[in-house]
Amino acid sequence: MGVVLAFDGAEAGKRASIEPLVKLVEPDMARVNESILARAKSHVELIPEIATHLINSGGKRIRPMLTLAAARMCGYEGEHHLKLASSVEFMHTATLLHDDVVDESDLRRGKQAARVIWGNQASVLVGDYLLGQAFRMMVETGSLEALRILSNAACVIAEGEVLQLSVSQDTSTTEDAYLQVIGAKTAALFAAAAEVGAVVAGRPREEQAALESYGRNLGIAFQLINDALDYSGSTEKLGKGVGDDFRERKITLPVVLSYRRGNKEERAFWKRTLEGGDQKPDDLAHAKALMERHNALEDTVDRANHYGDISRDALAIFPDSGWKAALLEAVDFCVARAY
Amino acid sequence: MGVVLAFDGAEAGKRASIEPLVKLVEPDMARVNESILARAKSHVELIPEIATHLINSGGKRIRPMLTLAAARMCGYEGEHHLKLASSVEFMHTATLLHDDVVDESDLRRGKQAARVIWGNQASVLVGDYLLGQAFRMMVETGSLEALRILSNAACVIAEGEVLQLSVSQDTSTTEDAYLQVIGAKTAALFAAAAEVGAVVAGRPREEQAALESYGRNLGIAFQLINDALDYSGSTEKLGKGVGDDFRERKITLPVVLSYRRGNKEERAFWKRTLEGGDQKPDDLAHAKALMERHNALEDTVDRANHYGDISRDALAIFPDSGWKAALLEAVDFCVARAY
Repeated sequence: MGVVLAFDGAEAGKRASIEPLVKLVEPDMARVNESILARAKSHVELIPEIATHLINSGGKRIRPMLTLAAARMCGYEGEHHLKLASSVEFMHTATLLHDDVVDESDLRRGKQAARVIWGNQASVLVGDYLLGQAFRMMVETGSLEALRILSNAACVIAEGEVLQLSVSQDTSTTEDAYLQVIGAKTAALFAAAAEVGAVVAGRPREEQAALESYGRNLGIAFQLINDALDYSGSTEKLGKGVGDDFRERKITLPVVLSYRRGNKEERAFWKRTLEGGDQKPDDLAHAKALMERHNALEDTVDRANHYGDISRDALAIFPDSGWKAALLEAVDFCVARAY
Repeated sequence: MGVVLAFDGAEAGKRASIEPLVKLVEPDMARVNESILARAKSHVELIPEIATHLINSGGKRIRPMLTLAAARMCGYEGEHHLKLASSVEFMHTATLLHDDVVDESDLRRGKQAARVIWGNQASVLVGDYLLGQAFRMMVETGSLEALRILSNAACVIAEGEVLQLSVSQDTSTTEDAYLQVIGAKTAALFAAAAEVGAVVAGRPREEQAALESYGRNLGIAFQLINDALDYSGSTEKLGKGVGDDFRERKITLPVVLSYRRGNKEERAFWKRTLEGGDQKPDDLAHAKALMERHNALEDTVDRANHYGDISRDALAIFPDSGWKAALLEAVDFCVARAY
């Protein structure tokens, strides 16, 4: 594909990387990974089987990383952030299991989805189990405030998924309606993951709010870049098939923009392929060409940069530190993935 | 059907009733019902639509009743038991939604199951939403101990459902294995619902444990009677179709007993109809005849009485009161439903 995406989030001459953050959280993350595997255990064999399939399948663990780094940036030196980080990853994993059932996806992170191997039934139930375990771990931290934030996120995520069901396959979805969906589906957990880092560290409300905003806007940027990559990236980079969103008839921002900017004939194309589900072999290539004609991918990345900027600014109230620098560069990296 | 079930749980000459309990909890339950409807609200229309469909479809609300009555028997005069009772009902409702998807049931409480009307996708997601709301309400009570008990129950329930997947359609399931499944699937929530009543009232561990045991054993008795009714009751009484368990190829205690006690030919019948799923029009009648031959329904009710006895004895440490009497009679009633 000839789409070249403009990028102006990172400093000139330096390629933004997630590595500084990964390195800093490494000792904590090793313990989170241990606890995740330990908590996915059950005398009911199917549970660890499915859970470890998902857990070992190479997710980026970005959400628990946010919890760990936020807590450390706030000067926390205890151990409860490890449990909260594990909870956050379990909530995410539970969502993935249920998502795959709802979307009828066959691939997840480049591997067969659990539902394909073990069936929808097991995916629903193991998701429920992991959600229960997530709450169990939160309770162990004794932080009612963290419980409030994460149970709230659980509701908002489910609400976002239901909302997506009702707006799905509607090509005339507005950009605002779409942002509402990803704000709930993706950004709510990013926001909660970062916020509970400040909570566990006992930091004042102002810093909690700053981390909430950092996480929320990073989450939106992250999702928008995913949307662009689904039409321009490589399967390897994306962890799922390029063109999956098109084949699964998902309305994402590149489609929203292309549909609005298109002429009558183009809108008919989007309606036929995404609302009607009538897709021919050349349709994905045509979809990409329409996106190129209307600058839809570049503009999706531009929008992502906008949220990335808000995310970075939210951290301004924190004193400089290695943690803060790594969290800021993580934003650059998320947006720069578009390359 | 000519099955007459022996019953010796209630006092001679008096028919056990759930009415005393229903009457006592009525003022509290009215407020729980209000809060359930208020909490099933969402700006995402599908959520209240599905939630109220289920909530208004005539469930007996026995689980939240246990929480309310347990708290009151323990002398509680605050309001947090209302939130816990609502949480318990939401957890139960979420389980029903996911259960119907997993079991591919068409009926729930005598009405079309939500998944038939709105689809599996919405049932999975609205279940997730209700579970999130349940935790939200628990957090509002500020009781970490209630949160611990109920999040634990959520895990155990999901574990039980997964376990059932793996033992399902295995006619050689032992009685113990079956009890393990219903101990997790049904009794864990009954136990937690009753236990948190003592917790919210700040009662000592001994009384918490007594109510946990009361709820757990009542739950097992309740499920065993359901199992018997599915082969002997009326659809009206059961809130679902008689013979559903057979058609859905569920292994329940009447089957476990009939299979073990049967000869080679009879075992082949159970294998063909339940493991193989090859069912002919007369098979349900034949299944009932085999159960009659082996006393399987009477003995299932006998087993239920055994757990009912344990449940009643668990309450012995509490001083006599109207609440205690009503909770005891509720056990009699649950077992007497077999008529």
